[in-house]
Amino acid sequence: MSRDERFTQEAQALGYSFDGEIKIGGNYVPLVRDGHQIYVSGQIPRVGDQVIVTGAVGAEVSLERAQLAAKVCAMRALALLQRSLGSLEQVRAMLRITVYVQSAAGFTQQSEVADGASDLLFRVLGPAGAHTRTSVGVLQLPKNASVEVDLIAAAVD
Amino acid sequence: MSRDERFTQEAQALGYSFDGEIKIGGNYVPLVRDGHQIYVSGQIPRVGDQVIVTGAVGAEVSLERAQLAAKVCAMRALALLQRSLGSLEQVRAMLRITVYVQSAAGFTQQSEVADGASDLLFRVLGPAGAHTRTSVGVLQLPKNASVEVDLIAAAVD
Amino acid sequence: MSRDERFTQEAQALGYSFDGEIKIGGNYVPLVRDGHQIYVSGQIPRVGDQVIVTGAVGAEVSLERAQLAAKVCAMRALALLQRSLGSLEQVRAMLRITVYVQSAAGFTQQSEVADGASDLLFRVLGPAGAHTRTSVGVLQLPKNASVEVDLIAAAVD
Repeated sequence: MSRDERFTQEAQALGYSFDGEIKIGGNYVPLVRDGHQIYVSGQIPRVGDQVIVTGAVGAEVSLERAQLAAKVCAMRALALLQRSLGSLEQVRAMLRITVYVQSAAGFTQQSEVADGASDLLFRVLGPAGAHTRTSVGVLQLPKNASVEVDLIAAAVD
Repeated sequence: MSRDERFTQEAQALGYSFDGEIKIGGNYVPLVRDGHQIYVSGQIPRVGDQVIVTGAVGAEVSLERAQLAAKVCAMRALALLQRSLGSLEQVRAMLRITVYVQSAAGFTQQSEVADGASDLLFRVLGPAGAHTRTSVGVLQLPKNASVEVDLIAAAVD
Repeated sequence: MSRDERFTQEAQALGYSFDGEIKIGGNYVPLVRDGHQIYVSGQIPRVGDQVIVTGAVGAEVSLERAQLAAKVCAMRALALLQRSLGSLEQVRAMLRITVYVQSAAGFTQQSEVADGASDLLFRVLGPAGAHTRTSVGVLQLPKNASVEVDLIAAAVD
């Protein structure tokens, strides 16, 4: 199965479509390419017009919902890469992902939340999905999103 | 009008000078170049010796003041690039900016704060100012700054 | 004295060994190389199985303990680079470090905490340890760690 087929399968499993416009919030761009490196803007778990997981993880939001949020953020980033490159087969490596988790005081499972994104990248991209990662617990995120993920990828030359 | 002239114009509109030393706080450097990529250290809204916007946005600090802070951070980063490259005309692309906003609980307009930096980069650099962006709401920033911005730029080869 | 000897000296001064496996928490990798650039995952002050400095800096954790935490994070990153490159002599430059400090409300000395990491990089790597830096105060970190540090380095071609 190709990566693009696996991407479609994951979208179906989530029950969300990533076919529409990937909206971003301000005066910037979703993706910038520099040689073979591709920077992707911070993604929140927005599907269409709606941010699907909001609030502080560890209080209003469960670990499981937060992992779903991280997964949706990663799917959005993959959707952007797929459109830009024509196919996810053109991704050579994932260099870095940073996972920001809107955290309740005392919530310390930011790594477990981030696993939602990491596992998805591995499932869709295979070994090329291996990446370095930083997970942090922040006070707030744009639009009260529970999770935000940005990344740097490398394309096949 | 050249980018350097637009930079000077923005500085005048802000009423601040970025001609002096750009002070940084510790045992590190403001800027490192690697090939054509230039990493710029996190900038707080310091003009001369003074951090001009401090405190939590959404509580002591209004959205408007926070956008001013983001703008001053971006101006400092541009000032550093201008000195290093001789002219802002030597900037080929902005790859990534990360905007950290010291946020009051419940303040979710981090993207709107970041627009202060994004809009300024577009105004000064034109299309080369297009960038990927991540905005997050943090608990605190060095010296109680309301906003901190770091970035990665690409120079003309 | 070589950089690797200085690294060993710092480890001895800290009283910690960085010889064992550098554990990371999830489904990702400690380090990814892209050409001469090396991305290192966010490091918390873990020695063996134990996170040695936990809690909010400015409340349960003193500035001095937080600086120790930052130092241990930097040592872990150096240990990873040393293993990957064979020797720290192969590090050409440090491009960027980001220092996340779990902060109590009102604690604004994130830069001073980050100096723990910056000073260590200079001591071990000499001029090649010069780096850009971003320091932020976050609400929480994985496993209640007081500090997390990630970095991007450049290897000798």
